[in-house]
Order: sequence, then structure tokens, then C-alpha cells
Amino acid sequence: MSKVATILGAILGMIILILSMIDFNSGKILSAFFNWQGLLVVLGGTFAATLINYPLGQFGCFFKSIVKIFSQETASPQLAIEQIIDLSHIAQQKGVLGLEKEIDFIDDKFLRFGITNLMIYRDEKSLRLSLEQSLNAMRMRHLTCQDVFNNMASYAPAFGMMGTVMGLIMMMTTQVAQDAVVVDGQGQDMLGALLQGMGLALVTTFYGVLFSNFLFIPTAGKLKVLSDAEVLKNQILIEGIIGLKHEESPIMLREMLMVFVNDLTKQRLDQSMH
Amino acid sequence: MSKVATILGAILGMIILILSMIDFNSGKILSAFFNWQGLLVVLGGTFAATLINYPLGQFGCFFKSIVKIFSQETASPQLAIEQIIDLSHIAQQKGVLGLEKEIDFIDDKFLRFGITNLMIYRDEKSLRLSLEQSLNAMRMRHLTCQDVFNNMASYAPAFGMMGTVMGLIMMMTTQVAQDAVVVDGQGQDMLGALLQGMGLALVTTFYGVLFSNFLFIPTAGKLKVLSDAEVLKNQILIEGIIGLKHEESPIMLREMLMVFVNDLTKQRLDQSMH
Amino acid sequence: MSKVATILGAILGMIILILSMIDFNSGKILSAFFNWQGLLVVLGGTFAATLINYPLGQFGCFFKSIVKIFSQETASPQLAIEQIIDLSHIAQQKGVLGLEKEIDFIDDKFLRFGITNLMIYRDEKSLRLSLEQSLNAMRMRHLTCQDVFNNMASYAPAFGMMGTVMGLIMMMTTQVAQDAVVVDGQGQDMLGALLQGMGLALVTTFYGVLFSNFLFIPTAGKLKVLSDAEVLKNQILIEGIIGLKHEESPIMLREMLMVFVNDLTKQRLDQSMH
Amino acid sequence: MSKVATILGAILGMIILILSMIDFNSGKILSAFFNWQGLLVVLGGTFAATLINYPLGQFGCFFKSIVKIFSQETASPQLAIEQIIDLSHIAQQKGVLGLEKEIDFIDDKFLRFGITNLMIYRDEKSLRLSLEQSLNAMRMRHLTCQDVFNNMASYAPAFGMMGTVMGLIMMMTTQVAQDAVVVDGQGQDMLGALLQGMGLALVTTFYGVLFSNFLFIPTAGKLKVLSDAEVLKNQILIEGIIGLKHEESPIMLREMLMVFVNDLTKQRLDQSMH
Amino acid sequence: MSKVATILGAILGMIILILSMIDFNSGKILSAFFNWQGLLVVLGGTFAATLINYPLGQFGCFFKSIVKIFSQETASPQLAIEQIIDLSHIAQQKGVLGLEKEIDFIDDKFLRFGITNLMIYRDEKSLRLSLEQSLNAMRMRHLTCQDVFNNMASYAPAFGMMGTVMGLIMMMTTQVAQDAVVVDGQGQDMLGALLQGMGLALVTTFYGVLFSNFLFIPTAGKLKVLSDAEVLKNQILIEGIIGLKHEESPIMLREMLMVFVNDLTKQRLDQSMH
Repeated sequence: MSKVATILGAILGMIILILSMIDFNSGKILSAFFNWQGLLVVLGGTFAATLINYPLGQFGCFFKSIVKIFSQETASPQLAIEQIIDLSHIAQQKGVLGLEKEIDFIDDKFLRFGITNLMIYRDEKSLRLSLEQSLNAMRMRHLTCQDVFNNMASYAPAFGMMGTVMGLIMMMTTQVAQDAVVVDGQGQDMLGALLQGMGLALVTTFYGVLFSNFLFIPTAGKLKVLSDAEVLKNQILIEGIIGLKHEESPIMLREMLMVFVNDLTKQRLDQSMH
Repeated sequence: MSKVATILGAILGMIILILSMIDFNSGKILSAFFNWQGLLVVLGGTFAATLINYPLGQFGCFFKSIVKIFSQETASPQLAIEQIIDLSHIAQQKGVLGLEKEIDFIDDKFLRFGITNLMIYRDEKSLRLSLEQSLNAMRMRHLTCQDVFNNMASYAPAFGMMGTVMGLIMMMTTQVAQDAVVVDGQGQDMLGALLQGMGLALVTTFYGVLFSNFLFIPTAGKLKVLSDAEVLKNQILIEGIIGLKHEESPIMLREMLMVFVNDLTKQRLDQSMH
Repeated sequence: MSKVATILGAILGMIILILSMIDFNSGKILSAFFNWQGLLVVLGGTFAATLINYPLGQFGCFFKSIVKIFSQETASPQLAIEQIIDLSHIAQQKGVLGLEKEIDFIDDKFLRFGITNLMIYRDEKSLRLSLEQSLNAMRMRHLTCQDVFNNMASYAPAFGMMGTVMGLIMMMTTQVAQDAVVVDGQGQDMLGALLQGMGLALVTTFYGVLFSNFLFIPTAGKLKVLSDAEVLKNQILIEGIIGLKHEESPIMLREMLMVFVNDLTKQRLDQSMH
Repeated sequence: MSKVATILGAILGMIILILSMIDFNSGKILSAFFNWQGLLVVLGGTFAATLINYPLGQFGCFFKSIVKIFSQETASPQLAIEQIIDLSHIAQQKGVLGLEKEIDFIDDKFLRFGITNLMIYRDEKSLRLSLEQSLNAMRMRHLTCQDVFNNMASYAPAFGMMGTVMGLIMMMTTQVAQDAVVVDGQGQDMLGALLQGMGLALVTTFYGVLFSNFLFIPTAGKLKVLSDAEVLKNQILIEGIIGLKHEESPIMLREMLMVFVNDLTKQRLDQSMH
Repeated sequence: MSKVATILGAILGMIILILSMIDFNSGKILSAFFNWQGLLVVLGGTFAATLINYPLGQFGCFFKSIVKIFSQETASPQLAIEQIIDLSHIAQQKGVLGLEKEIDFIDDKFLRFGITNLMIYRDEKSLRLSLEQSLNAMRMRHLTCQDVFNNMASYAPAFGMMGTVMGLIMMMTTQVAQDAVVVDGQGQDMLGALLQGMGLALVTTFYGVLFSNFLFIPTAGKLKVLSDAEVLKNQILIEGIIGLKHEESPIMLREMLMVFVNDLTKQRLDQSMH
């Protein structure tokens, strides 16, 4: 139910955003909230800084990640335990080497890699090292992708604030000065123009906070959740594969792997076993 | 006395909040502090961003945690030591295997799990590894729940600030401009309207800071306190179970486990022992 | 000279604070700096949030700590080394078991605990483990107490800011609006009232920054200094007790323990030895 | 494709910056954005503080790093694996000592250092220690260079803010006061002058945010990316050199080293092998 | 060239600061930047809070550190390697025990301590442990001194901000109110007084940012650079002394220690050896 929450959150966010942008006096969405020049400063600046910061390949994970958080489910530790126990039944009947024929039927990429390594490495230490190095390298790759979003989350409000400062400078040094010349003596008009100028200048701050808190931070957070779940699943698989190496019984393996999951999953596993 | 403090804190906070919202000129709570549109932006935005960030299951820990901090006591290290020493008396009389009959009478889930493992694993190393992996997995699950609140604590002021910026933009570009047209020449009215608009816009900042500092941060903090106490209790239990495995005497066990507690608990333990 | 600095700092701070609160036109302390409602929001809010955050027992360390930083000296590594060397002289004459009679004459609680353990545990590994677990548990207890102050240090300015926002909302939506009605056409009065309202609203920000930077942060810092010094002293004691176990000579022990102290203490030790 | 992204980002940033600085009423870049005194405060202050902070040698890495991020490609793990496998083919034919003749033909400095060490150290432990110490020392040197930029990234906005505060003080205490005397009764002119003064004062804030977010932070980020890629490459080389020491077969080496890379690189390696 | 950079930076900073404080209309340094009451709040408050935070002994490192960053050179890893190699030549001729006579001719305190320990400890493990504990204790002492400056760097802007808030409260509740009474109807004068009051209030913010970014942060940074260099030098010395214990040849020692230094130092070492 991971992508459901993300889609729900995105829709809820959109509705709230639109509702807050309606001016209830006129009943219309306020046009002041759409300012292409402001959008250019904030998003353009954020992307420019991110491009300087990361190689193209790593930058590409921006688009992949947006797709990923709306489509990928969190990895299931329950499924991992069940798969390991299925394999241990086969190993009990045909021996550990009998697992070789099963490799092609395994969907999970890490488990396939692990069973292949189980065939290759003779000693447990090398097997565990290889699996853990692989898991660690995966975690590092995930982290760099989260980093892209975390960086964008801090660039966006900075450029939003910069845009507002630029808008204020522009307004204060030109517009107002001109008004002062034209409508000499009429404080009212000048203040109105001043306020309108400030309103426009503030739009970039709004964009910066919006993109940071509705897009970049939640995406980075979701990527972390997905990564953590995958790491946990793979840790269970590593312990399971080492257990297979030791030719532990399915019951013992189940006992060993259940320490990684919460009570709910334990109950579900108990039911699915019997 | 853990939930007492939380309930006390919540009541105290409520009283202070209501007192500060009273306008002493009129003697009534100021209606300006209640603004449903503002509440929608701050709470709605916070929940939307949190939903994007976490799967539904993890998001569910929001409601569970609110209940938890008002109902759950911090785990008692004293009780843990007493339980271990009771078990060690039984183990001295009937042998370690005699503990198997006691499992059903143990309330503490982790201790029950530990004594079961004591029966299952023959070597100390596997026993300790299993208990520590279980403890670590529990700590990780607690951490993800604290993370939800920590994230909300940083989303809330951000959306509060965003709401204020949106309110200012709206006010500056429409309301004031209109006023300027209608009441030409009357600076007074315009300033009044401007100030009132600002006042309304600031409400979302107030909500953001309030929810963050009265709800999200203290809840995350309390969850951490509860988790830390449970981790300490379970560490004591792990050392105690390993001690049972080694068939240490009750006196030796007490000596070994007392290093984990403060002087007050030590004295209480000394009294309850004699 | 640890408490001297704290007392000096507190007095210096008081003087500076009072000097800055004097209005040099009138020569009196400005009454605007005393606002009981503002104080209630900031201190009340901070305490309420802290109560939600911590169990009563842990919250109690607030008052104990305030007393502690004005009364407790930092633990002396020099004294620890001298005590260990005194004990090693006795151990050389009467054997390690001869130290048992000395236990009652030892003031330092951790050293007494350590020498008791030296009698109890036969192997070095268990002895070291017991001492280090005890030291670690102590450090954790100190940390939770520092955490209370660190949390208050971040709550106080947040509630100070919240109070200012509340004051601005109140002022802008009621007071000024009323003034606008009453004194139509007199921009002067309105601006005066507005400024005075702002001044009052800013008082809570002042309180928040003041309590955070004069009370909570320095206290947390001082507790850390005291804790670090005690941890260092206990680390020296642990190494010393292990050395006693090994029946090292006093000269060798002195050489081993001097690596933990700075040059000044080394010189003092050299003088006190000869 | 690493430097391409950096160059692209720099160009994109320039274009956006210039576009945002154009005043669309007059069609010209606003002269208010260029203020040499303001630039002096921000850049001068940042460089002065950095000079106090770092020795000249370390400060020199500022200029080297700017060149580096526009010219250096990220280290390729694929190339590292291919080089190791090439060497393992040679080692299979001529023995490990036969690699000595190859040293001069190796471009990669770390690999050359590693193969030299392979000749020098007889036991694996010393070999691995030497390589890892060298890698670690390299990482530390990279970190100090990133630190220079991270420090500048926090100095720049601080001096930008300081410049604005100084500008406001100057403006408020002199300019405006003079205006008040000269144009008594004309609120309009004074407000205009005030706004213009504020606009000028804000320029340093703009510079601070701009340099921090377009120059210092992205450069520090890019240096980290380059360093991380080089560390990964060298970790692969270390494992490969240890593998050569063990006289592993090329196929086994490939299997061992592929755990460090992502799927895309794995496929490319599979293609390049066959 | 470490102190040269610090002195250069300090001079450059002074020049820039003075240039920015000149009012180019009058050509004089603006007196508004000098405000003894403001300076008292910021510096006095910072010192008072620091005194509460640290014992007198540790506080004393404030003055020592200021002197240190202008006088001490960063420790040279090159010199450390050369000294070790010189000693290894002597050890080759006269045996390791022959180094005892050299102790008095060694300038470097840590090396002298290390060679003394080389005489005292027979087994490598105790020798390494003693040296590493000593290095670690030194690093901890350096860290506490950096902590003093880091704390001051965060106290200064906080008290600067507090001073500004106090100034605003004072100005808004007294001065302006009085003006409002006196010059009824003259908005101009009141605004002028208001602005001047704000200008004065802002001076403490300026002081806070200035001291933090020109004094406290760069000093803490420089102390870290000096400490890191000394730690690296001592790590080289530790490895070298262990190498002397193993009676490694000078050539082998050089090879082992060169992994710690960069290419430039390697080349310089190669030249100085031949």
C-alpha cells in the first residue's frame, strides 16, 4: 500500500494548494500566483545548481525517482522469509546444490544473485562478504539518488529567497522611484504600487517553499523508505542464504529470520505456514 | 509516572494557549486565531507531504503513537532485573531447561522470546546474535515511527510560512489594490485593511509553530524516551538471559545487571531483595 | 575552579542584562521588558512541551542540574591517578586481595565500585566489561539530562516567536482596527499605537532568546563538560584497576595513566610524586 | 559525461541569472544589481574569513577545484574492473611477479601504486593495510578541500546579511535624517529615498545567496561526487589487487568485483568481455 | 605558510570592514557603527554565557588559541617521516635500544614520548595502545578548545539579535510614544526618529554577525586545521615507531609512511632523500 499513500498525498496536496490559491472575494484562482519569470528563477536556478553538482547520469535519477515513488511498492520482508523457507525445503530434499536449477525461477534479483553466489563461493566468509558488499554498494547508489533530492530541497528555498530579494531590489530602485516622480504628492498610489511589487516579489519565496516541501523533501523521504525496506529485505535474504549454506532446517530458518520482522508480520507468517 | 507527565504537560499547554488567546480588552478569545482556511493549509499540507513520504502502514503509526504517549509507561529496568533473578532461582533448582515451563507465565514479550531462544539455541554466540538482531530490528521500527513525527515537525512550520506568504501575496495584489481604488486619498483605511490582512496571514505561521512545538516535536521526543527505556530494559534482559545460559548464581546475576541502573534503582533493588 | 566560572558568568550576565534594560533617557529600567503574559507563553509553553516530552523522573533532573552546575567541581584526573597509585602501593605490599580492606576508605563511588568488582570477577575480560558497561550507562544517564536542556533551548525561542506572532495578530486585528474607527484621519496616533503593540509583541521573542542563550544552552553545555570530565576520570580509573589486576608496579601504572592527561597535570603529578 | 553537466549547469545558471536581472520596463539589465562596494563586503569578507581559517596551501585548492570540476571526469568503476582483469590474464600466464614489467604501462596512479605494493609486501594483511591507509589519506585530503567550499558557502550569506545590516544602519542614521531636514513635510520623497536605500542594502544579501548557491555549494557537491567516485574506483582496485595476490582466475575476479557496480555497468562489462 | 594566511586574512578583513563603514557622502567612518552599549550586550553576553558553560581552565584556552592561530605553523608530515627515517638509520647501526641516547635530541614532544615508550613497553600491542590513547587524549583536548569557539560563534549572533529586539522594544515603547505626544501631526519627524532608532538597534545584529564570522568561526576552523595536521603527523609517528619496533629497514619505513602524504610531499621527500 505504499504507492497508494503517495498518490493520495499528491492528490490531497493538489486540492489543498488549489483551495488556498482561490480568492474568495472573486471566486477565481488568483493570477498573481502564476508568474513565469519567478518560476524560471526558482526551478531554473535549482536545476542549474543541481547540474553543476552532479554528473548527467546521476542527475537522470531525478526523473526515474519521480516515476519510482508512484509505482514501486516497498519490499516485503514476509515474502523474503517465505522464499527462503521454500528454498530450504528444496535444499532439504535435493541438497544445497539442487538449488542451482531453481535460480531461473527466482524473481527477486538479490536472491538470484545470492543463490548464484552460494554455488560459487565455498567458504561462508567469502559468501557473506560478497553479499554484504553488494548490499552496501546498492545502499550507496540509493543514497546518491536521495542526495540529489535533498540538495534540490535546499536549493529551491534559497533561490526562492534570492528571487524575492531581486524582485525587491528591482521594485525599490526603479518602479517606485518612477512612481514617485509621476504621481508626486500622492502617497496612496505609491504605497499601492509598492505593496503590489512586494506581492509579486514574494511569489518566488512561495515557489521555493512549495517545491521544497511538496516535491523534493517528500520524494527524498519516500526514496529513503523504499531503500530502507529493500535493505531490510536483503539483510533477511543474506541471513537466509547463510542459513541455507549451513543446511539449517526450514523451522530453524523461520525462527532465525523472524527476529527481523514486527509482530503483525510474524502472525501473518504463522498463518501462511500452517 | 511517565504518562502523568505527558497528560500534565498537555493540560498545562492547553491552559497557557487559551490564556494567551484571550483579548483582555474584550475578555473573549479572539476569533482571528480560528481560521479554517489557514488550518487547512498547515495541517492539510503537512499530512499531504507526510503521505507522499511514507507508506500507509507507517503513516498509521501516527495515530497509534498519539495514543501510546498518553497510555504507555516507560519500561522499568528494576522489574527486568527482578524477573531475571526470579528465573535464576528457578534455574538453580530445576536446571536451565526447567525454565521452559515458566515461559507461559512471563508477561514481558521480549523476555518470553529470550527464554524460548534459550531453549532453542545451544551455543551462546547464536543466542546473543538472535536476541541482539531482534532488539535492533525493534529499535529500527521505533525509529521510523519517530521519523514520521520529526518530519511533520519540519513540514508544519514550512507550510505555516508558505500560508503566510500566500496570504500576503493575495492581500497585497487584490484587497489593497481594490481599497486603493475605492477609498482614494484615505491612507488610514488602507493601512487598517493592510494590517488586518497581515494579521490574518500570520495565523498560518502561528499554527505551524504551534503544531510543531506542542504536538510533533514533543511526541517524537516522548517516543524516543519510551524506545530508549525499552531498549535499556531489553539490553538488561539479554545480559540476564546470557547469564542464565552460563548458570550464574542469582547474586552474581544481580551484581552483573546492576551496572545498568542508577543509584536510586540500586537502592530499591537492595530493599526488594532483602 | 569550575563553579567559580559558572557563578561569575551568571553574575556578569545579570549585570549586562540589567544595564541593557535601562532606558538612559529616564534612568529607569523599562517596564516594557516585564510582561507576565509574555513570560507565561514562553516559559509555560517550554515547560508544557518538556513535560509532554519527558517522564516526571527525567524532568526532575532540570532542578537537580541547575543546582549541580553551581556546586559541583569537574572531576580531577590527577586525583584519580594519585588514588590508583596509592592503591598499587598497598597492592604491592599486601597483594591485590589486600585492597578489600581499603574499599570503605575510598570516597570516589566509581573507584569503590571498581575495586569491589576487582574482588568479584576473576578474569580481566568480565571485569573490564562490567566497568565499561557501568561507565556507559552513567554516560547515557547524563546524556538524557543534557537532552532535557537542549530541548528546552530549542523550545524557548520557538515559543518566543509564537508569542510575538500571536501578539501581532491580536494587535493588528483588534486594537488597530478599533483605533482606525475612533481616530479617523489621525495617522499619527495609529502608527504610535501600532509601534507600541509591536514593541509588546517583541517581548516574547526577547524572553525566548534570553532563556535559551543565558539559561538552557549554557547549562546543557556545563553538564556536558562535567560529564566529559567524569567519563575521562572513570576511564583512567578503569585502566588503573585493570593495571592493578595485572599487578603492575606503581611506576608503570603512572606511566600508563599519564597518557590521558595534559602537560600541566603531568608536571603537577611529577611534583606530587617526588 | 560529468563535466558536460557542470558546464551545462553553469551556462543555464548564467542565462537565468541575466534574464532575471533584466528590467522588462526598460529592457535593460538593472544597474542596481552591480554594486562594487557590496561585492567587496561579500566576496572580500568571505575570502578574508577563509584565509584566517585555512593555511595558504589548503586555500590554494580553491582555484584548483574550480578548474577541476570543469575538466575532470568521474572515475569509471568499469575501467577499473577491466584493468584488473587484464592484469589477471597476464598474472595467469607469467605469474604475479610478471606484473612488475606492466607497472610502467599503467595509467591509473592508484593501480600503479597498488601493483608496486603487491611486489613489496609479502603478506596480504600489510598489503591491504598499506592500500587502505593510502585510500583513506586521499579521502581526507579531498575532504579538506570540500570543507573550504562548505565554509565559504556559509560565510557568503552571513557577510551578505552583514552588508545589508550595515547598509540599513548607514541609510537610516545619515541619509534619511538629512533628507528629513532638507525636504521637511514631503513624506513622499523621504519614503522614496528610504526604499532606494533599502534596495541598495539588499544587494549584498543577493550576492551572498547567489555565490553560496551558484558557486560554493555546487562546487563542494561536485568535489564530493568526484571524490566518492574515485574512492569507489580505488576500493574496487584494492579488492582486485588482493584478488591478484590470491591468484584468483579472471572469471572469479570479475564475479568478485561486479558486486560494486550497478546493473547498467554490469551489462556493459558483460558485453565488453565477450 | 599557515600563520601568513591567518595574518593576511585578518588584515584583509580589517581593510574591508573599514572601507564598508565609510559613508562616502561625508568621507568619514560612520559613528553609528560604534555603540558601546551594543558592544556590551553582544560581547558581554557571549562571554557571560561562555563562562557559565566552561570551567575557568577551559575558558583560558580562548586567549591561548587567539595567540596560537597567529603564531603556530601546521605540523609537517614531511618532517615527521624524515625524523623517523633518521632514527631508523641509527637503529640499524646500534639496535633499537641505541635510540635511548637520542631521546634528548628530539624536539618533537610526541616523538620523544613515543621513543620513550618504545623503551618501556616490550610488546607491540601495549606500545600501540599507549601511543593511540595519548593521541586520542590530545585530540579530545583540542576538540574542547574548538568547542569553546564554536559555542561563542553561536552565542554572538543570538545576543546580537537579542540586542536588536531589546533596542526595538525600547524605541517603540518609549521614544516614539514621546515623540508622538510632542510633535503631534508631524509624521515626518516621527518616522525619522523611528528609522534612526531602528538603525541603532540593528548595530548589535551587525556586531553579532561580525564577531561570529570574522573571529569565532575562523578561529575554530583554524584550530581544527592545526589539530588535524598534528593528528596526522602523530599517526605517521605512531606507524613509524611501530616500524622501528619491527626493525624495518629505512627504505621500507619510507615506503610505509609515504601512503599518508600527498604527491607534492612525496616528491619533496624523494628529493631530500637522494
